[in-house]
Amino acid sequence: MAKSLPPMSATATTPPRNPPLLGVLGGMGPLAAADFLAKLAEETPASRDQEHIPYVAWGVPQIPDRPAAILGHGESPLPQMLRGIAALKQAGAQAIAIACNTAHYWHDDLLREGGLPILHIADAVCDLLAERGINAGNIGLIATEGTLQAGFFQQRFAARGLGCIVSSSEDRQRLVLPAIAAVKANNLPLAHTLAVQAVMRLHGSGACAVVLACTETPLAIDHAASAATPLCIDATRALARACIAWHRRASKTGSAA
Amino acid sequence: MAKSLPPMSATATTPPRNPPLLGVLGGMGPLAAADFLAKLAEETPASRDQEHIPYVAWGVPQIPDRPAAILGHGESPLPQMLRGIAALKQAGAQAIAIACNTAHYWHDDLLREGGLPILHIADAVCDLLAERGINAGNIGLIATEGTLQAGFFQQRFAARGLGCIVSSSEDRQRLVLPAIAAVKANNLPLAHTLAVQAVMRLHGSGACAVVLACTETPLAIDHAASAATPLCIDATRALARACIAWHRRASKTGSAA
Repeated sequence: MAKSLPPMSATATTPPRNPPLLGVLGGMGPLAAADFLAKLAEETPASRDQEHIPYVAWGVPQIPDRPAAILGHGESPLPQMLRGIAALKQAGAQAIAIACNTAHYWHDDLLREGGLPILHIADAVCDLLAERGINAGNIGLIATEGTLQAGFFQQRFAARGLGCIVSSSEDRQRLVLPAIAAVKANNLPLAHTLAVQAVMRLHGSGACAVVLACTETPLAIDHAASAATPLCIDATRALARACIAWHRRASKTGSAA
Repeated sequence: MAKSLPPMSATATTPPRNPPLLGVLGGMGPLAAADFLAKLAEETPASRDQEHIPYVAWGVPQIPDRPAAILGHGESPLPQMLRGIAALKQAGAQAIAIACNTAHYWHDDLLREGGLPILHIADAVCDLLAERGINAGNIGLIATEGTLQAGFFQQRFAARGLGCIVSSSEDRQRLVLPAIAAVKANNLPLAHTLAVQAVMRLHGSGACAVVLACTETPLAIDHAASAATPLCIDATRALARACIAWHRRASKTGSAA
């Protein structure tokens, strides 16, 4: 995918002494931030190490469960997320990427109280859909119960004239949630089988593309090639690409906005 | 490998409000810190997200080339590394792991000037060799020219009564360095073929184990199963395990030392 991006600008090829620093809020899912950082490197069109995007990452997993809080039966993770953003800002971060789909439920609070621009993963996904020429039809959405309930993907799809298809309650219980649990338990073959079924079921219901909007699901799908692969949009990778575009803009203008 | 570690202590299972924070100095190799963080998660014997090791990572690749500086024809990366350690310390890090083998050339300077404990990747490798029952014989070493010249692996092996075998100059030029370059260029199949040959050549010269002491080489070896796999010690993974052991000790004692 890196190949489809235009080459880095002359400004970025000769980086200034202090290029814009990206803050990565991680710790939500043990592998999510590491996977995001790997995709950030993979997607960056760099010809040498020094052309990669500079970042500082906060990966503190001692934070209340996000889906439980959204579903109304758990402590809010907002104070811990704000603590992370404060640490990233203190370290010099000029914009924030959140390496967790569900946590975007608190995007507006974090933006208002954190004092830094925050790239939105669902905007990044919509931009990638547009880049792939997908401007109409129904988009499948594979996500946690918290992300589905939060509704920010569905709202952003609708704003761009796209419909949204989610897995049935039964498919979520027997395919999506067990796939996520299997990734967390490091059982990628099982996770792959379940996630591929979930994607193909959404495709069978009329989805022309399927967004993997939970950081565990791309790890499950990418474990092996399958019929699901060309249908999928990896939200983590979309966010990485949005961060690279932010960095290019901020390097040119000297502004982080 | 996580299975061979004892379960987390009761202290860690019920984490305190502010468990010890690990600082990760990255940005040296575009994928090195992401790979280290993934291995840190994989090796942690956690049954839920909140039991993973909290970290803050500094990944600023705008830093002078390490091997060039060691070989005497490049600017020193020490000031930029100290800047990273200062940012990590400011963010609350209580100990540092450096996700780059070659950068350990500056370990003593960073320890003296950075003001934080720094786990040493070669000590971590020696501990893992001992854990595997390797207390005698010759250890193969696959590394950059800078790491080989720096000598800290060879010295630590010798201190534990182990010999060291490095690839011939010819094998380094035709196998090791091209394997590293192929990982950086995202050509893992080529990198794998070259790295496996380099490992098997060291084994043929009498190495009972081969340490992959450049963060790119484990990515090359792990691309597929091969005869090299059981011979290899991944220095990145060894460092991750040392960090988990540090975190367990620091959680118990309340001290970061």
